[in-house]
Parts: sequence; structure tokens; C-alpha cells
Amino acid sequence: MSLPRSQQTLTAYVNGTFIALADATIHIEDRGFQFADGVYEVVACFAGSFLDLQAHLERLQRSCDGVRIPLPCSLEKMAELVQQTYERNPFEDAMVYIQITRGAAPRSHLPQAELTPTLIITSRLLPKPSDEKVATGIKAITLKDIRWKHCEIKSIALLASVLGKQEAALQQADEAFWLDEENHVLEGCATNILAIIDDTLVTHPLDHQVLGGITRDMAIRVAKEHGLTVEERPWSLEESGLTEAMMSSTTNAVIPIRCINEQIIGDGKAGKTTMQIRAWMLEAMEALRSA
Amino acid sequence: MSLPRSQQTLTAYVNGTFIALADATIHIEDRGFQFADGVYEVVACFAGSFLDLQAHLERLQRSCDGVRIPLPCSLEKMAELVQQTYERNPFEDAMVYIQITRGAAPRSHLPQAELTPTLIITSRLLPKPSDEKVATGIKAITLKDIRWKHCEIKSIALLASVLGKQEAALQQADEAFWLDEENHVLEGCATNILAIIDDTLVTHPLDHQVLGGITRDMAIRVAKEHGLTVEERPWSLEESGLTEAMMSSTTNAVIPIRCINEQIIGDGKAGKTTMQIRAWMLEAMEALRSA
Repeated sequence: MSLPRSQQTLTAYVNGTFIALADATIHIEDRGFQFADGVYEVVACFAGSFLDLQAHLERLQRSCDGVRIPLPCSLEKMAELVQQTYERNPFEDAMVYIQITRGAAPRSHLPQAELTPTLIITSRLLPKPSDEKVATGIKAITLKDIRWKHCEIKSIALLASVLGKQEAALQQADEAFWLDEENHVLEGCATNILAIIDDTLVTHPLDHQVLGGITRDMAIRVAKEHGLTVEERPWSLEESGLTEAMMSSTTNAVIPIRCINEQIIGDGKAGKTTMQIRAWMLEAMEALRSA
Repeated sequence: MSLPRSQQTLTAYVNGTFIALADATIHIEDRGFQFADGVYEVVACFAGSFLDLQAHLERLQRSCDGVRIPLPCSLEKMAELVQQTYERNPFEDAMVYIQITRGAAPRSHLPQAELTPTLIITSRLLPKPSDEKVATGIKAITLKDIRWKHCEIKSIALLASVLGKQEAALQQADEAFWLDEENHVLEGCATNILAIIDDTLVTHPLDHQVLGGITRDMAIRVAKEHGLTVEERPWSLEESGLTEAMMSSTTNAVIPIRCINEQIIGDGKAGKTTMQIRAWMLEAMEALRSA
């Protein structure tokens, strides 16, 4: 039997072993550390039930395929390790982080053949947006997209997004959204973005500039289930029918965006349709608790 | 007194301590491992004398400034640590690797304030191109540029370059060179590229698509010193006056390129001017030995 949850300390899984998070290390020549040669996932867990775990694991496999890193174990085994890591940590509601890198080897851009991939899993408290943020909506900025051209791969080469988040913070904003050359709104540094335009839920289609967010999928799914029209198409902040905007991520479900740069969205309050979609999503998450 | 060089085992510097390379680790929540939030340098050392160390350290400082990571110590102190790491390792001719990351912290895109940067330094045998490669020239391919838009920063977000090197290897080539939208040749995955066009040494000007290579600078410098004309301008493989191409890097000086994709460069042999520039560069490196 494991310890009562409240008495547990933080534990990480690293390459076959559970270890105190404080002591969890990888070699300095791990290619994840020297080349960003790896991929990752973040999965939410509510009182022991994971939200869309299978979808996250399948995306992890696609990310590995996209950079030619072999999966370190089957997805079934990975699901077990995720479950075990969750259970060894003291959080009822958690975000479980999974990272796979190509492995450790003397530094060389060209990967050596047959490296053993590195696998780490951690579980931390699921952060939730404050009631205030949800009620008033968040502030965002836009930036010209400086990222690489395979954003459909969930890679750890995240420096551009770190710089974007830094720039947002410098402007007292919560998130930065990337714009393409024609000023279409793509996605955020760690979120997708959806808008209500002429009563339709609109978001950029999946291509090399946008990660296929599992929470983005969920927002689209619940919207359709409740009879909303959904369009996946390029869109811009200049469209006259734009009345609401929301951002989606594993830790946020969707939350409203009240302004982007100097532009007030709609009436500058949490959008009605946004809050409705959020309620539908939270309902599905709460249902997991009693599952 | 340190051990005779031949009896030394590999030693790394990690955050204030010299440690056996085999045991050298960083925390799994180091931002270099989870966000590619770091920068690096590779410096060549010939029998104890470093090639352009000051230029490398100044570029390291510019890279840190570019991503807002504070230098973990002064450049003078860094030069001492580089020297000590070199001395603790068993290689007369070495490449010393320096990496700085923003530090370790619970995972969050937005960096926490006042993290302590991570500094690691290693020293390995300086790899030299084989006599055959130098004599016959290397084979290369081109790829449409998929990298981010701050290649002037020497960051560890190198996944695109890893994929480029992999693609080159799959095509039995040694290097892949990135092309911009107008098919101008930018740089390689781990090298710069220069060409001889109408008897002039030509290379892409420094901008956000090209790293300011210290060895690129050296090639330009020795060429000018010996009366060659040098032009930094966009250029393409279709130019009719193209007779030679060469790639430059810390570990290669310059070496000739005999073909790119299916295109034979010049007469498909090591270019005369390329080999002349190489000889001038090796002369300067040999001079370091007796310094």
C-alpha cells in the first residue's frame, strides 16, 4: 500500500525508476538538454481520472514519429507509468508531465544510431485560473510568429514561446498570440485561441503553425454537441463580426480574453458563449471525478 | 599539480564543481531540458592555445542578452573555467563546449524571476575532417528553411538542425544547407557556407537567418588579408559564375563541397581557392601551437 496522499513527497519517474523529484536528474549530454531533441505532453487528472489520456498518448506517439524518436515503451505501459506517477504524488487534481528525448550521447548534431530514449514523468498540482481571471477575462498581446515551421509537433524546442511569454509579461499581459504574415491569429505560446465571429466558433485550422490541442478539440466537440456552428479557418482580429475570444489549454479549459493589444474584445467582459462552452467543459471534467 | 594528461579521465564542470563526466547531471526541471531555454558555444583549443576565445565569449554574452539570461559569471571568470576544464581532460587538441541555461524551476513557460543560471563546460577531443573528405570535398543537400527566426542567437533549440542532419544522412550526405524563400543559400545545420563566384568569396550577410560564425569571420579575414575580394550578399546555386563552395565550422576550418543535391560544384574536386583559404587558416591555427 502506498502512503496516504497527504504524507507523500514529490516523486518523479526517470528512466525506469521512481525517485524523489529533488534528486531527479539526467545526464548533461542528454540530447534533450543539448539539442531540444525531444517531445512532451501534459495531461490533467481529476481525482484519479485522466482527461483524454488516450488522445494525449496518441499525440505523443505522433510527435515521436515526427522527429524519428522511437517510443521508449508501448502506450499501454506509458499509461500505467502515468497512473503510477500520479499515485505517488500528493495531488488529487494534478497535471502529469511526460517528456521523451532521444537519449544521452557525446554531443553531435547527427544522432548516433540506436540510442536509448530518455523518459521522465512528473506530477504536480493542477493549476487553475483564478476566479477573477475567469470572471474578467485575460489580457493578451500579439507577436509576429518567430517559431519554427513544425508547430504541429509538440517538441521541447520551446525557446520562442518562452520569449513570447516574457514579452507578454513585460506588457502586463497573460499570453501572447502568434500572427502569420497576413495577420491571421494562429495560437498562443502555451494555448490555442478560438473566437466567436457572427455567432460561429472560429479557430485556425490545423497545419504546421498550430498544435492540435486536445483541449481545443474538446471545446469544438462540446460546442458542436450543443448545436453551435464551428468553422476551422484563418481569421483575424479585424473581422467586424468578432464579439468574443477565448484561449484553451489543459490547465485552463477555456477562459475568456477581454483584450488583445489595445483592442477590447466585444464589450470587454467575459463572453456569454465562451462562459457557456466553459461550463459544458467543466461539467465533463466534473463527471470524471465521479467516474 | 594535475595528473599527466594521458592518465586523466573525462571531467566536466557543472555549476561550480568539477566532476567525472559520467556522473555529470542536471535536474530534470532545468529549463534547458524542458524549454530549450539556453545558449552555447564550442571553442577549439590547439595544444593549450584557444582559437578566438574572446570572440566566442563575446558571442556567448550576446546570445544570453538575446534571450534575457544573465551571465552566470564574468567573461574573465568564464575564460578561467574554460581553461581549467581543458586542463582536466586528456586532449591536447580539444573542443571545449560551454552551455548556459536559465536554471531549474517547476515547469512554467514564463520564467520565474531571479533563477540561478546553469553553467556546464566539457572538453572532448577536437574532431578533424578526414584527409579523404578534405581531398575530395563533401556532399551536401539543401532544404527549405524550417528553423525559427532568430538564428543569429546561438541557442540550444536545435531540433530543426538535428532533423536537417538526419535528412542529409538519409541521403548519404554530410550536411544540409537551408534555403530561404528565394532559394538563397543561408547556412548549414552546424556550419556556415561560402562560395567562390566570379573569383570573389561570397557568403550570405549576417541577419536573423545566419549565425555569425567565428570561423566564417576567420575565413573572410584571411581571404581579405591575402587580397581576395569578399562580398557578403544573398547568393544562389544557380549563379553562372559559381566555381567553388566550402563550409566553415570550429571543427573543420573550411573544407570543400564537391556537390550539392545533384549539382556538381565546379569540376567536382576540391576548389583551388578553397584549399588556399584552408591552408591560410591552418597556418594561423598551427601558429597557436607554438604560441
